[in-house]
Amino acid sequence: MGDLRQLVRTIPDYPKPGILFRDVTTLMGDAKGFKAAVEGMAAPYLNDNIDAVAGIEARGFILGGAVADRLSCGFIPIRKKGKLPWKTIGQQYSLEYGVDIIEIHADAIKPGERILIVDDLIATGGTAEAAAKLISRTGGLVAGPAFLVDLPDLGGLDLLRSHGIRTHALLAFEGH
Amino acid sequence: MGDLRQLVRTIPDYPKPGILFRDVTTLMGDAKGFKAAVEGMAAPYLNDNIDAVAGIEARGFILGGAVADRLSCGFIPIRKKGKLPWKTIGQQYSLEYGVDIIEIHADAIKPGERILIVDDLIATGGTAEAAAKLISRTGGLVAGPAFLVDLPDLGGLDLLRSHGIRTHALLAFEGH
Repeated sequence: MGDLRQLVRTIPDYPKPGILFRDVTTLMGDAKGFKAAVEGMAAPYLNDNIDAVAGIEARGFILGGAVADRLSCGFIPIRKKGKLPWKTIGQQYSLEYGVDIIEIHADAIKPGERILIVDDLIATGGTAEAAAKLISRTGGLVAGPAFLVDLPDLGGLDLLRSHGIRTHALLAFEGH
Repeated sequence: MGDLRQLVRTIPDYPKPGILFRDVTTLMGDAKGFKAAVEGMAAPYLNDNIDAVAGIEARGFILGGAVADRLSCGFIPIRKKGKLPWKTIGQQYSLEYGVDIIEIHADAIKPGERILIVDDLIATGGTAEAAAKLISRTGGLVAGPAFLVDLPDLGGLDLLRSHGIRTHALLAFEGH
């Protein structure tokens, strides 16, 4: 995945001083890079009977839509509070300062369905953990999350594994 | 496309009284529906040498990612103001009350590249028109937009055609 790593743009001091932001839009804008990312994220789950991909707003929508198409399954959006038009259930999670809420349509998942969480990047894992809780609360089974980029120094995959969730990320970048 | 139409949920009086909101999340959550939507949106452009899909935040990301994968091309996000991490150019457009701005990375498109705009729904066409202007300003060529749902009573496709832009929508719903 050496070539794929090089397609990720690193932006220093964004969104604030001291942070190295990993910008995946350059990778997604590259035809070969985008295809390799989608293929690589879908590959571990091709024979896993996934019923739907749950993509996390907003960059998780881009990769999640393509992964759902590869897996011939449905796509379920997990959105910021107030963005979904029907009845929702919400889950609070912690940010560096304060809290935020993500929501899912209350009828998006049937009990027992196997759901693959997709996002572009995992940092501390707070959003993915909240997404997993939402899926469990609707009666779904978390078949695993697929990420394009992992920031291992922030421990997100370890957090998910502590809940017994299988995890998979294509690229890892040190630092944060 | 009769079956596909029936997968769209209509929510009365959302986001405000008198509006019939066409909710495509139910269609996207259905494995066969999602596949049919992606296939149908990509089909007219399979042999059109598209260099990249430009997906409009946020539901345009879901369909746009999958369409880009089908066309073996890159994906470029067009986002609300302040959401992209690198240098951007912005385009203002009118809403029912007031104005809004969408942005694209200034280096996302190389001159002469053929770009397919993807969004879930076209209403008045203001956002798609602004997206087309952004693409032209970066030197790209608008190969066409692909929409899942058209609300013909609002005239969006006519607006785009008045600019000489080829258009394509899979489903049409009367009213708004």
